[in-house]
Amino acid sequence: MVFTHKREIPTRGQGDAHDITDLVSGAVTESKLTAGVATVFVVGSTAVVTTIEFEPGAIADLNRVLEEIAPRQADYRHHLRWGDDNGSSHVRAALVGPSLAVPFAKATLMVGTWQQIILLECDTRPRKREVIIQLVGE
Amino acid sequence: MVFTHKREIPTRGQGDAHDITDLVSGAVTESKLTAGVATVFVVGSTAVVTTIEFEPGAIADLNRVLEEIAPRQADYRHHLRWGDDNGSSHVRAALVGPSLAVPFAKATLMVGTWQQIILLECDTRPRKREVIIQLVGE
Amino acid sequence: MVFTHKREIPTRGQGDAHDITDLVSGAVTESKLTAGVATVFVVGSTAVVTTIEFEPGAIADLNRVLEEIAPRQADYRHHLRWGDDNGSSHVRAALVGPSLAVPFAKATLMVGTWQQIILLECDTRPRKREVIIQLVGE
Repeated sequence: MVFTHKREIPTRGQGDAHDITDLVSGAVTESKLTAGVATVFVVGSTAVVTTIEFEPGAIADLNRVLEEIAPRQADYRHHLRWGDDNGSSHVRAALVGPSLAVPFAKATLMVGTWQQIILLECDTRPRKREVIIQLVGE
Repeated sequence: MVFTHKREIPTRGQGDAHDITDLVSGAVTESKLTAGVATVFVVGSTAVVTTIEFEPGAIADLNRVLEEIAPRQADYRHHLRWGDDNGSSHVRAALVGPSLAVPFAKATLMVGTWQQIILLECDTRPRKREVIIQLVGE
Repeated sequence: MVFTHKREIPTRGQGDAHDITDLVSGAVTESKLTAGVATVFVVGSTAVVTTIEFEPGAIADLNRVLEEIAPRQADYRHHLRWGDDNGSSHVRAALVGPSLAVPFAKATLMVGTWQQIILLECDTRPRKREVIIQLVGE
């Protein structure tokens, strides 16, 4: 059986992280499924879904390293195409990815205590993000 | 229900990107499934599947950053083992990953307008890539 | 149908890689499922699951690049919070990710001959890792 949940999450621009673990857990509870996989997917090519210990230090460290990998202020060929300023956002998002698959059993997500599911905005401006939680299970 | 689609895609070597969104959409249509998850997986350890806005600038930016992370011309211990020259390919592929899970509902992939599913060749030579699209749904 | 397999894997600290392909294959065999997706997920926010050619050179290359991206000996804001020394671990794990979806058909994982599924420890100390293999299929 398949259950689809959607949620719109407003973000404040590059580096803004949202803990969406409870959102995913809530979708599992609401679905009445007991075992399966929750696929968490962000629509759009400038945001990512991953896991991390959700505390400000770790989030800042992750953002600092992403800034080193793909600095916001740098020359990107993507900027030449549209006059955009978010080349760094596209590169970061393609590297980390928009999708995460998390198993659940006994109607409970199998994440660690210090492991939160996050939506990380990579775009250079605030966005309204559509997050899909697709549950497949029994 | 499960549907398996395979497609062989010839590539031209490191950095060659292919938009496979229509291939995945077509598999969903052909399956007659209406809701579920499409798992897109590339067989082999020197290519990746991810999403990006498929335009030449963004692809070039991604490849430039991958070249900075794991330069093609550098010393890799993998080269010592087989006499290969694709250490950079293995590192890039392990970082980004061979697999992507994309939800679909109402028989439609839930990707963004500017978010394409890509196969990115990381190997140093042309390859014939086997891409698996595994649909699980109802 | 859904089958859940868990396995505890002891690791020796940052950079320790384990080939868990046979573990995942064995779970598929035991489940009697013939087609579907195996979601391989490591519980905790300082380890990753990905694929690579499992030979010491490629593993060393991957670890060297991860050390360049997020050096173990560096200042992390995460260290200020808990007195931990594993900021590099959190960053590496968030970038690469804790989850991998691998299709199977005819009761066989569809990975390449030289493509192994690995658990890579990123934490700075030995850990006992819980790996979940969640099979959804028919």
